[in-house]
Amino acid sequence: MSSTPRVFNFAAGPAVLPLPVLEEAQRDLVSMPGVGMSILEMSHRGKFFEGVLAQTEKDVRALAGVPDEYKVLFLHGGASLQFSMVPLNFLPRDASADYIVSGAWSQKAVKEAKKVGGVKIAWTGETGNFSTIPAQGDLKLDPAAAYVSFTSNETIHGVEFDEVPETGGVPLVCDASSDMFSRPIDVARHALIYAGAQKNIGPAGVALVIVSGEWLKRRVEDPKLPSMLNYALHADNGSMYNTPPVFPIYIMGLVMKWLISIGGLPAIREINRRKAAKLYAEIDRTGFYRGHAQKSCRSLMNVTFRLPSEELEAAFVKEAKAAGLDGLKGHRSVGGLRASIYNAFPEAGIDALVEFMKEYERKHG
Amino acid sequence: MSSTPRVFNFAAGPAVLPLPVLEEAQRDLVSMPGVGMSILEMSHRGKFFEGVLAQTEKDVRALAGVPDEYKVLFLHGGASLQFSMVPLNFLPRDASADYIVSGAWSQKAVKEAKKVGGVKIAWTGETGNFSTIPAQGDLKLDPAAAYVSFTSNETIHGVEFDEVPETGGVPLVCDASSDMFSRPIDVARHALIYAGAQKNIGPAGVALVIVSGEWLKRRVEDPKLPSMLNYALHADNGSMYNTPPVFPIYIMGLVMKWLISIGGLPAIREINRRKAAKLYAEIDRTGFYRGHAQKSCRSLMNVTFRLPSEELEAAFVKEAKAAGLDGLKGHRSVGGLRASIYNAFPEAGIDALVEFMKEYERKHG
Repeated sequence: MSSTPRVFNFAAGPAVLPLPVLEEAQRDLVSMPGVGMSILEMSHRGKFFEGVLAQTEKDVRALAGVPDEYKVLFLHGGASLQFSMVPLNFLPRDASADYIVSGAWSQKAVKEAKKVGGVKIAWTGETGNFSTIPAQGDLKLDPAAAYVSFTSNETIHGVEFDEVPETGGVPLVCDASSDMFSRPIDVARHALIYAGAQKNIGPAGVALVIVSGEWLKRRVEDPKLPSMLNYALHADNGSMYNTPPVFPIYIMGLVMKWLISIGGLPAIREINRRKAAKLYAEIDRTGFYRGHAQKSCRSLMNVTFRLPSEELEAAFVKEAKAAGLDGLKGHRSVGGLRASIYNAFPEAGIDALVEFMKEYERKHG
Repeated sequence: MSSTPRVFNFAAGPAVLPLPVLEEAQRDLVSMPGVGMSILEMSHRGKFFEGVLAQTEKDVRALAGVPDEYKVLFLHGGASLQFSMVPLNFLPRDASADYIVSGAWSQKAVKEAKKVGGVKIAWTGETGNFSTIPAQGDLKLDPAAAYVSFTSNETIHGVEFDEVPETGGVPLVCDASSDMFSRPIDVARHALIYAGAQKNIGPAGVALVIVSGEWLKRRVEDPKLPSMLNYALHADNGSMYNTPPVFPIYIMGLVMKWLISIGGLPAIREINRRKAAKLYAEIDRTGFYRGHAQKSCRSLMNVTFRLPSEELEAAFVKEAKAAGLDGLKGHRSVGGLRASIYNAFPEAGIDALVEFMKEYERKHG
């Protein structure tokens, strides 16, 4: 079908999707078999989409072992709207919540929470330009906090939590936007997990929220809360309070099917570990490349690294793109390079990048 | 490509899209020519999508003759989030706004606005189960209102404003979700126009907002306003404060291109008038069918009608579906039948429905 060969897409998000997902979506785009209209044209109240939504929820539950009492929601607005929805629903106006600040995304979450109530910074990696993740003992946790919020993987800085923080019974909220379903996740240790879809689980335009029904019962009752920001209302309406983002959910459903087909979260973790290990090994090989994150905190999803000079970095990005390795420029707040290697990123692309890095060092090292 | 022939899709939304739009999206879905990745995988900060966004805005401006000082925004959350964003940004907490209530959607807008400030009902059609539209003289407008809000077309009840209400200088807000770009629109008479995309302008998952930059300067400054609900922030960031719904915007862009290709808004109005006239003529022909809306207020987009009995209505829906005429069941609050015949709905589908109606009446009349 396509005349332009596919490149290796290292973009941080929206990011690469599994080829079988794209091919199935393409095949059925004009007329869904058995329906006779495009998924883009279908009523969200119709049988076909209701089936898509139910199956996607079922697959999410199966993949992550979501306990029955948890609600699985598919919402508008991306993770950025979650930054506000979490405190608006769960932070009493006279209480405070603990935020662990490990990078740019947790900073954004803090900014929105401060509009709602008190925020205590349980830890921040700001002085080291977010190159580390706190050890459990580093956290200053308030036992009276409404919840503890953390970001399991920081897309921009390339640091990732290896262990879920221990909160001593305080509800734990996780922004898992950039490593959701890249490895097994112990849902029961969280009160709420959210993820914008556009890295590991789908295209832009939908956020996945997994929230404890028990916690939802203890939410802040605010009669002024906009309906669209009310988790309970979305849960009561099965994510259909208003027209949901039908197509992004459909694609997320295909991604879940693909994840199950390759063996689920344990299998994808092994693949992700192997891919990341190859790349970090090359970064560490001679000292020509330098990783941004400390070794113990390295993300398996976003590999951030520097070269000896900004000129060499700029030339690397340009030459790599010409060689079919796209999207390697790092975020301006970190500089250098960033290789985002989410679930769907093919191992052949890692091998190609490693080869390119070796060759680039031979020429410029 | 597709094995299941396309049906005639009378759904109220998400609704039928132009076939050339679907075919182009299908062709390029796995690998965009010249890019080598799917539109579903592309960074919103990349050149290709920036071009899509810029061209879509340009086409929206050209189609509607949007004055230069207006901002064109592409936002998450559908029209339902706009119900909250409008008052949160423009209704001072000690002031009130006028709402014209012509159906279910304006009722929902009122509900959200009341959470923010005062609401005065300038008119309501509730006693007649929303079968009419107010004349200018029917409106009780407050010259001190922060704004006047109205719904240009009520999807559920099938009533549509023929003229924009005259507000005597009070800013006018229009929910045009179900008739946006179905006819020429005088943007300059409005302070803000919003539309969920999934009827006339695209798939579910994006809302189009056209807002006066001058009015935006006079917005309510609320430091507690969530960032994602802040029009000014979205405008300052060119709809890229967070990752926008990339694919729904891309499809909206293709729909705009299609609209321009067939002659723009004057041309589509003529087509829509002709399509609706055929259907209403059949409804009025014998008295077997009865329109819900009063004749002077009939929607060109959503044609609501009843049959002599609920049994005949149920059988009609079932037999029509079997004949390839899908989505004709009316909303439960009105009952009966509803044929949604948006811009992209083909005239051949109107002819097929009219034929089916004649035959059904012959059998059951």
